[in-house]
Amino acid sequence: MGNGRTLGVGLIGLGVVGTGVVQLIQKNREDFKKFRGVDLDLRRVAVRDPGKPREVDLPTGAFTTAEALVEDPDVDIVVEVMGGVDAATDLCCRALKSGKDLVTANKAMMAERGDEVFSAAAAGGASVGFEASVCGGIPILQALRDGLVANQVESLYGILNGTTNYILTRMTDEGGSFDEMLQEAQDAGYAEADPAMDIDGTDAAQKLSLLCRIAFRRRLDPEHISKEGIEGISPVDIDFARELGYTIKLLGIARPLGDSIEARVHPALVPLDSQLANIKHEFNAVEVVGSAAGPQVFTGRGAGRLPTASAIVADLVDVAQRRLAGRGESADLARLPEAAPASPDSVKISAYCRFTVFDTPGVLAQIACIFADHNIGIAKVIQHGRSESEGDTVTLIMTTHEARESDMKRAVHVIGQLPVVQHEPKVIRIEEL
Amino acid sequence: MGNGRTLGVGLIGLGVVGTGVVQLIQKNREDFKKFRGVDLDLRRVAVRDPGKPREVDLPTGAFTTAEALVEDPDVDIVVEVMGGVDAATDLCCRALKSGKDLVTANKAMMAERGDEVFSAAAAGGASVGFEASVCGGIPILQALRDGLVANQVESLYGILNGTTNYILTRMTDEGGSFDEMLQEAQDAGYAEADPAMDIDGTDAAQKLSLLCRIAFRRRLDPEHISKEGIEGISPVDIDFARELGYTIKLLGIARPLGDSIEARVHPALVPLDSQLANIKHEFNAVEVVGSAAGPQVFTGRGAGRLPTASAIVADLVDVAQRRLAGRGESADLARLPEAAPASPDSVKISAYCRFTVFDTPGVLAQIACIFADHNIGIAKVIQHGRSESEGDTVTLIMTTHEARESDMKRAVHVIGQLPVVQHEPKVIRIEEL
Repeated sequence: MGNGRTLGVGLIGLGVVGTGVVQLIQKNREDFKKFRGVDLDLRRVAVRDPGKPREVDLPTGAFTTAEALVEDPDVDIVVEVMGGVDAATDLCCRALKSGKDLVTANKAMMAERGDEVFSAAAAGGASVGFEASVCGGIPILQALRDGLVANQVESLYGILNGTTNYILTRMTDEGGSFDEMLQEAQDAGYAEADPAMDIDGTDAAQKLSLLCRIAFRRRLDPEHISKEGIEGISPVDIDFARELGYTIKLLGIARPLGDSIEARVHPALVPLDSQLANIKHEFNAVEVVGSAAGPQVFTGRGAGRLPTASAIVADLVDVAQRRLAGRGESADLARLPEAAPASPDSVKISAYCRFTVFDTPGVLAQIACIFADHNIGIAKVIQHGRSESEGDTVTLIMTTHEARESDMKRAVHVIGQLPVVQHEPKVIRIEEL
Repeated sequence: MGNGRTLGVGLIGLGVVGTGVVQLIQKNREDFKKFRGVDLDLRRVAVRDPGKPREVDLPTGAFTTAEALVEDPDVDIVVEVMGGVDAATDLCCRALKSGKDLVTANKAMMAERGDEVFSAAAAGGASVGFEASVCGGIPILQALRDGLVANQVESLYGILNGTTNYILTRMTDEGGSFDEMLQEAQDAGYAEADPAMDIDGTDAAQKLSLLCRIAFRRRLDPEHISKEGIEGISPVDIDFARELGYTIKLLGIARPLGDSIEARVHPALVPLDSQLANIKHEFNAVEVVGSAAGPQVFTGRGAGRLPTASAIVADLVDVAQRRLAGRGESADLARLPEAAPASPDSVKISAYCRFTVFDTPGVLAQIACIFADHNIGIAKVIQHGRSESEGDTVTLIMTTHEARESDMKRAVHVIGQLPVVQHEPKVIRIEEL
């Protein structure tokens, strides 16, 4: 194993991100030896088709299968960028149990099967680095784990998905519809051919669950995070939001609430002069409020070849230094208590409500009464004159003061049943940040 | 020394920040034992007056002198928050040479005497943590050192001084003068009784020099960083900047330029929709462009008891873990090459220029000719009608395209000599970010 400071790296997957990892290791290897005391020797690369032309030069004999790689005694650290959940979990756990360290960008695996991965690491005395799985190149897990170690996290707000942020930014700047801007995002390479997991909040919920694991030391199954995507956001909502001093972002939000954790992903109105409002296009951001440090914001590119590879290689250096220092994974991430989801009665929200109503006398009074009956105070009301396209109806916008989420749901349901109200009312939460 | 994982901490200084450090160690000690495997035992505190009432409870016999503390075999890690340069350097170097680790918030010491401190650390095989000395609670040094380890830093822009950012924010929001807002900052506790080092850019230059040490692995004496403070910024500059789509911030800027490093501190116009423009009041921010990760921004509170203590205690945990793993300071920070300052001929800038000119025919033509003669293109011109307070003169604003800094200086000097120009022209650089 060389001079004792050389560590063998095995890479599973040589797609976009894997190629970036090879490039960054090759480019920085001498600096890592000189300045960090670790020599990262890329020894094995597992690919499906070894004959395919590649952008990078690899040592002769490097190509192998994933099955062989995780058993290979020349590999000390496995970098997993193959994606998918079941096969990846199986390979990663085998590597960890045999004492190999793991660096991964696989958020779905870590969010859904993290317990198994951390248990395997504990069994093998190995480390897991998964910085690249949340917000690409932004060192947010490191900041939460190390930089804020003397803090209790009071709240966490994140723009965690670049695809939806790109679409919302374009809808805001150009005034286009969701469908048009989704198409444009696909053309520009910011959205997958099948963007469902991005659009509906699944991807953000997976990342939020990983952030919660580090920030609150609690397990939170992404399935238990309430989520709502951006497919229902219309250009009129963006316009009214601006009139009220807000813009619309898809947020992942988590905060302790007594013994439970409130965790949710949904579009929200955020003030135009807040930092998160100014995170544009495919960028990601996380705002953390620490009990000692106060509010901090971390922003950067959340995806892409080199940003993701940057986080992977940073983890590689960290894991390698820990291995050389004889300091494996602290086993505690494997045995975290499950977080109880916050009950809807304990969650308080304020909201933007858009109603399409018949333009007849008494409508405003009826709606206002229903809000009042549910202990919900009205903050602002906007009703412009009737536009041609609306026919007999007008659009009525109301924002509310903070109220119980359960009351809000009931009130909006009752309003939606009124004969004067057309269509389902649209409700978007407001987060003052 | 207890169970082998207990480390003795000695604190020099029990002022505002020192008290915060004691509070955070006491509050989190059990968590650090449980989750990080280190028991931080605060054993000695050096104060000038042991009889003075304190906000925190300390173990009997903890009080000692700084001289005794740095020799005390029960102290493994010294936390220095006494401030000042010479006495602090002497104490810290003695502690380091005898193998004690050091955590410090002392930016003046680290910027001016860093070489001695790192050499002492190398001699003693000890570690130095100085995260708290730059931007308080923001884990920016960690991000540069670890999170961006696979990147070459292409540029670094920082709002590094909370006092000046508070004053500029208030001038922008309220329209007050520099003197009024300085007074207000002092009343609000955001400016010292003697704010000279904040106002004139010295504090920001010290922090920039420390950022350069980590980002570029170069020594850069703060004395060699060109600097200009905010005392010359007038409300009219802020108003014209806004009219042009900018706001004014005091920036620390550094970037490699061939073999040298361009490093400077000065007020700059930044675009209203940039992230740095929206960093308000006493907050700090650093924007780093990494060769792989792309642009990243880190923001938070740059000063104050708990934000600073948060960074100190994070360093304490890091240094303690490194000590337990037998991994002392890598000696290389002590032997960095000196950065050559960039020559004014190689630096290119664009600028906002405010001239006070007599309102006579031909003035604009004269000034425009001088710019043209110096190869400087004009981007925008603003001249409003004459106001009553200006008498025979008018204010003429010009922004330029990018040009050599040396040409800009010569051109403005020549313009300032014109008989039609009253007062010294005001030049503020524009940074598009």
